[in-house]
Amino acid sequence: MTEQTISAAFYRGGKSFAVEQTTAPAPKPGEVSVRVAYCGICGTDMHVYHGNMDARVGFNRVIGHEMSGVVAAIGEGVDTVTLGQKVVVRPLDHCGDCPACDAGHRHICHKLKFLGLDTDGAMQEIWTVPAHTLHGLPDELRLDHAALIEPVAVACHDVRLSQLKEGEDVVVIGGGPIGILVAMVARDAGGKVVVSEVNPNRLKIAQKLGFKTINPAEADLTAEINAITGDKGADVVFEVSGTQPGVDAMTQVAATRARIVMVAIHAQKPQIDLFQFFWRELQLIGARVYEPEDYEKAIGIISSGGVDADTVITDVAALEDIQTAFESLDRSPTALKSLIKVGADL
Amino acid sequence: MTEQTISAAFYRGGKSFAVEQTTAPAPKPGEVSVRVAYCGICGTDMHVYHGNMDARVGFNRVIGHEMSGVVAAIGEGVDTVTLGQKVVVRPLDHCGDCPACDAGHRHICHKLKFLGLDTDGAMQEIWTVPAHTLHGLPDELRLDHAALIEPVAVACHDVRLSQLKEGEDVVVIGGGPIGILVAMVARDAGGKVVVSEVNPNRLKIAQKLGFKTINPAEADLTAEINAITGDKGADVVFEVSGTQPGVDAMTQVAATRARIVMVAIHAQKPQIDLFQFFWRELQLIGARVYEPEDYEKAIGIISSGGVDADTVITDVAALEDIQTAFESLDRSPTALKSLIKVGADL
Ligand SMILES: [Zn+2]
Ligand SMILES: [Zn+2]
Ligand SMILES: [Zn+2]
Ligand SMILES: [Zn+2]
Repeated sequence: MTEQTISAAFYRGGKSFAVEQTTAPAPKPGEVSVRVAYCGICGTDMHVYHGNMDARVGFNRVIGHEMSGVVAAIGEGVDTVTLGQKVVVRPLDHCGDCPACDAGHRHICHKLKFLGLDTDGAMQEIWTVPAHTLHGLPDELRLDHAALIEPVAVACHDVRLSQLKEGEDVVVIGGGPIGILVAMVARDAGGKVVVSEVNPNRLKIAQKLGFKTINPAEADLTAEINAITGDKGADVVFEVSGTQPGVDAMTQVAATRARIVMVAIHAQKPQIDLFQFFWRELQLIGARVYEPEDYEKAIGIISSGGVDADTVITDVAALEDIQTAFESLDRSPTALKSLIKVGADL
Repeated sequence: MTEQTISAAFYRGGKSFAVEQTTAPAPKPGEVSVRVAYCGICGTDMHVYHGNMDARVGFNRVIGHEMSGVVAAIGEGVDTVTLGQKVVVRPLDHCGDCPACDAGHRHICHKLKFLGLDTDGAMQEIWTVPAHTLHGLPDELRLDHAALIEPVAVACHDVRLSQLKEGEDVVVIGGGPIGILVAMVARDAGGKVVVSEVNPNRLKIAQKLGFKTINPAEADLTAEINAITGDKGADVVFEVSGTQPGVDAMTQVAATRARIVMVAIHAQKPQIDLFQFFWRELQLIGARVYEPEDYEKAIGIISSGGVDADTVITDVAALEDIQTAFESLDRSPTALKSLIKVGADL
């Protein structure tokens, strides 16, 4: 493949995108060009839309990283994919030379580049990326479903680090899009999952997906979890709410020796009941993005239907309608995942 | 052995002990009577002395649990010890019927009885205990040194739960008696240990014991740890200070994916930089008392000299001088461990 003219959606600041023609370069050695099929809108992308990340992304950036596509061109020296193969991108590029990389924790490299934020992303017809970021997909996997692999991989990472075992009691604190995926992956791993959420719309979605729910604004969450678990408490807790009440609840619902996974981003420093960590030997486990095995796990879960993709995908819009898609997602109380159909012919 | 008259030190409230004659019962089935040699004064015992635990212990309690002794009489059905054998007591009695016991975490049983607080303890010439609490000692181990096994077992539990590997960088935040033992056990496990402490007397003791020390009131702790570790940070952090500055420091000095062990009792709920847990995938691990394997490990470390017992034991007083022993320990800025010599003839 040589250079070619494509459509791309540029973030221009002030809650606006412009879909324009641009040039897709030929892949350099070690790179692969992917014809993008679908790209989901992430919570991070909504932050960009709201102007919260202008300093980081600027006003000439193609965002997007929750994508699926097929290999369109292969750079020199790459033998891990074939032309036309269905793929997804794990959008992390590490430095290879920091203490985290040295210790093998490349996904949390101290100089991590997140593709689609620190570089151009997938809201364009052809996306050229380092070959090491690609995961091949089963031929029969639908490309709209495959656009869920990135957010599901986040949930797979959270659940893997929790060391959840079949039959264990799980509480997910916060039933938004991320919490729901965590709940689905935890259930797929054999966990008995309860979702704690205050928003009535989110409660309905969680119930529709078959989860037991508790609204801690209306019921005593700890008492309910104790009743369900025979006064044991939850073996695994996922804190996805990012709130002080969520942090209070995470130690209250936890069983002795429970693992509490910190999924949420806490911009403030909340107060924590550290005495409970000591007294009941609780563990707190920070979890961020994903590692290659989490991607492979996510591909398996989407393929097997362990995550109900058709329920999770609540909207699909064409690339030229990206502006409207962000606007309606921003307003919607019930949307889970909105996809942009980037490649009309795929 | 039938009943016999012995001396015992009773806590009578108001910072006072009374050494009186009492009757040691014969051991019941499943019990063992131990002739106590030495009993260390624990931080918890100092809390009792100060009246902070009156509601729990009352005013007719023999306290003490950091002991060594020899088997004096064996109850029916006990075949795990022999008369005259050197032993220590692991002073935990579990209920066998709570969620923690069910899950195998008997040492943090929800109805745990701590011997020497919830029952009479070792500040008496003969102490009768459940046989399952006993650990046999090597014949050649000195009984004064053996009185350190209980506090060293706490440190062994902390270090075991940290999963410390040889060559890893360790920061111990708080260089009091517990912090110093944690530091010694971590060094014995191959850790490169730095002790952070503000008290000049404690700093001197830590230095005397061969530890690199940093006084965070005088130096930038995080910068120093970064300098020592090539900007990596500490792989394992023990928070033993129980203070908000200690909690601030624990995330600041931690390497990516570091394990932070919560040794201290935080009566308040401190603020924690949870974002760092997420961003660098830190882990917080609560650790309380010990399990049988920690006792075996502690016996090994004391036997091998991995803990310098003669430096740690800063005072030995006779049972009849227990009042003065508590008073001087309370005043002493440099004492590490004071022992009561309970059995004059051992
Ligand atoms: Zn995302
Ligand atoms: Zn790196
Ligand atoms: Zn103690
Ligand atoms: Zn129990």
